[in-house]
Amino acid sequence: MPSSQPPLAAPRELIDDIDNRILDLLQQRNRVVGDVIATKIRQSLPIFDAAREADKIVRFRAQAVERGLDAEWAEDFLRMIMGSSRDRQSHGDFPRAGSQPREVLLVGGAGGMGSLYRRFLERSGHRVRVLDRDDWPRVAQLAAGIDLAIVAVPIDVTAEVICRLAPHLPADAVLADFTSNKNGLLELMRQVHPGPVLSLHPLHGPDAPNLAKQLMLACPGRDPQRSQWLLEQCRLWGMRIKIVEADQHDRAMHLIQGLRHFTTFLHGSFLRQCNLHPEDILDYSSPVYRMELMMTARMFAQDPQLYADIVLANAERRSLLLEFLEHHRALARIIEDNDREAFITEFRDISAFFADFAERARRESGYLIYRLSERFA
Amino acid sequence: MPSSQPPLAAPRELIDDIDNRILDLLQQRNRVVGDVIATKIRQSLPIFDAAREADKIVRFRAQAVERGLDAEWAEDFLRMIMGSSRDRQSHGDFPRAGSQPREVLLVGGAGGMGSLYRRFLERSGHRVRVLDRDDWPRVAQLAAGIDLAIVAVPIDVTAEVICRLAPHLPADAVLADFTSNKNGLLELMRQVHPGPVLSLHPLHGPDAPNLAKQLMLACPGRDPQRSQWLLEQCRLWGMRIKIVEADQHDRAMHLIQGLRHFTTFLHGSFLRQCNLHPEDILDYSSPVYRMELMMTARMFAQDPQLYADIVLANAERRSLLLEFLEHHRALARIIEDNDREAFITEFRDISAFFADFAERARRESGYLIYRLSERFA
Repeated sequence: MPSSQPPLAAPRELIDDIDNRILDLLQQRNRVVGDVIATKIRQSLPIFDAAREADKIVRFRAQAVERGLDAEWAEDFLRMIMGSSRDRQSHGDFPRAGSQPREVLLVGGAGGMGSLYRRFLERSGHRVRVLDRDDWPRVAQLAAGIDLAIVAVPIDVTAEVICRLAPHLPADAVLADFTSNKNGLLELMRQVHPGPVLSLHPLHGPDAPNLAKQLMLACPGRDPQRSQWLLEQCRLWGMRIKIVEADQHDRAMHLIQGLRHFTTFLHGSFLRQCNLHPEDILDYSSPVYRMELMMTARMFAQDPQLYADIVLANAERRSLLLEFLEHHRALARIIEDNDREAFITEFRDISAFFADFAERARRESGYLIYRLSERFA
Repeated sequence: MPSSQPPLAAPRELIDDIDNRILDLLQQRNRVVGDVIATKIRQSLPIFDAAREADKIVRFRAQAVERGLDAEWAEDFLRMIMGSSRDRQSHGDFPRAGSQPREVLLVGGAGGMGSLYRRFLERSGHRVRVLDRDDWPRVAQLAAGIDLAIVAVPIDVTAEVICRLAPHLPADAVLADFTSNKNGLLELMRQVHPGPVLSLHPLHGPDAPNLAKQLMLACPGRDPQRSQWLLEQCRLWGMRIKIVEADQHDRAMHLIQGLRHFTTFLHGSFLRQCNLHPEDILDYSSPVYRMELMMTARMFAQDPQLYADIVLANAERRSLLLEFLEHHRALARIIEDNDREAFITEFRDISAFFADFAERARRESGYLIYRLSERFA
């Protein structure tokens, strides 16, 4: 090597060459995965096969370890490759549940969730009609002969839309909704529609790159066997389905959506009052805090109406949030009295409540915090 | 193909074969990276070279796109490979700042942060002595002839330890600490030690797999040029250094550590009061909420003493946290009055405060939420 050559040039060229060969292999892999998916669509097999993935991961970890690579890292790496294959698939066709295509009316089909499900339904070979705000003059025509109507409109107009739609539905059409409050609504749907009723709550946003692994909550309302094909279709998209009671669902949502979003709102609002700008905070942030700040700030890039709907949803949720203030008042006494012992006692009681889950959370979040610092720091 | 053969067997074998070849290439890559690192150590070059990484990422993205792969995905993938190389490196040797090894006394060197920095100092060729709780009878001997003392003990005993240590320090030794409250402490250090003083705050936990990309805050106290080698050593480990004023540092920490951890404490405590078990919550959780739950729950797998120290740190912080209760009381009126308009107005004001940062947070956290669902769902 001439002495003018920087000492790292040769190994770096070698690394670039290896990286190119890895990219070539990934390209080949995508082609083969494309063949697998085409076969799955022809044979109506689910795109996402949990058992196959689990088995593949075990083998891949072992093969990585044989080569002196870290098993955890290798699993991560393989999941990235597999996830990428699934994502590319979400631009292609999907297997269809049932031998016949269904006629589906998407009410609010021009909105975020409506558009997303329209794409997936169409790519599975179903026929989709859209009813949005301006289409009510044509409602009779749009609802004629449909197998399924999905109401995917903002929560504060859902009840009204269901009442307006119901008289036009064929008696045997499935009436479904995507709303995050189930109790009153399910009752209403049963009152206004004599046919099959299924209340759904997809637990992802309209920008989900993919439905695989996403969670779909379902509260059966009437004639569950007549809407079975729809849940099967969700399964073929790779979704996880959980059947829940409406009461149970709503109580969990008060704490999951209501409390969590209100707490974030409170935190963001106080940061504003203290006027410490987020960009400055980043200068002082460990990856953990950076993550927490990102989770707070992300809310404020979104729609205020949506969060008002969620936080103020109904009287029961608002009363829970007022209890939360009482709870804050009680804990603030610890701060007022500078009562270290009381803080530690309360902390230990919470730890006991979270039990093993806390340790699991530490591991999972630790992984992500590390990914965050790797990716963005 | 015999008809008894499942139709996916052949392409799956092909995929397994490609995956094995990728693992072979990764093994080769690790070997070459090992050579690069050995060269860097010999020549005292930083392990982490931001410009080289940025350049490499641009080229890799372009090469991926040429092969029909997604550029974002490819960047992620490359960062994983590079991060893994750095992690393996943290078990090996590091370049040393300065031609001579330094004599370092780690006070609290048996604790988490102490042990971590001991390992890094020793792997960079410095000589480390440890002074822990039971070593005070030998303090004179341990402090004799040292170049640097780092005080890495719990915050509530830091001042006491510094006072006890100072009389034994050589006059020209650098006195440094790792505490998260700077203002009073920096003053104290200047009073009790006539030599160079540097107050440090490493923004990572004791379980950081790696110091590369981690943030080190530094408040210079006296004779900054005499502790320059220590900051240079941090840089050689790949750390990002930020020089800050003590006042500014402490105010940011009230909001970053104090408020954030108290909010998490409050949220966890109320979940316990409502008795909705976290495992049940997961059944109803989108990836976003799963992430938020993980960030709350992780706190309760950790040391209550540490969080008591952080939340109750000093009178200024406690008074800020009592203001936070007042703020909560004010926002609760929105809930009480079911005042949708007021909620939306406050939300918009917060969005304006977060400005572009909110959109960036949505993107970054969106990436991680997706990684979370990919990895753990």
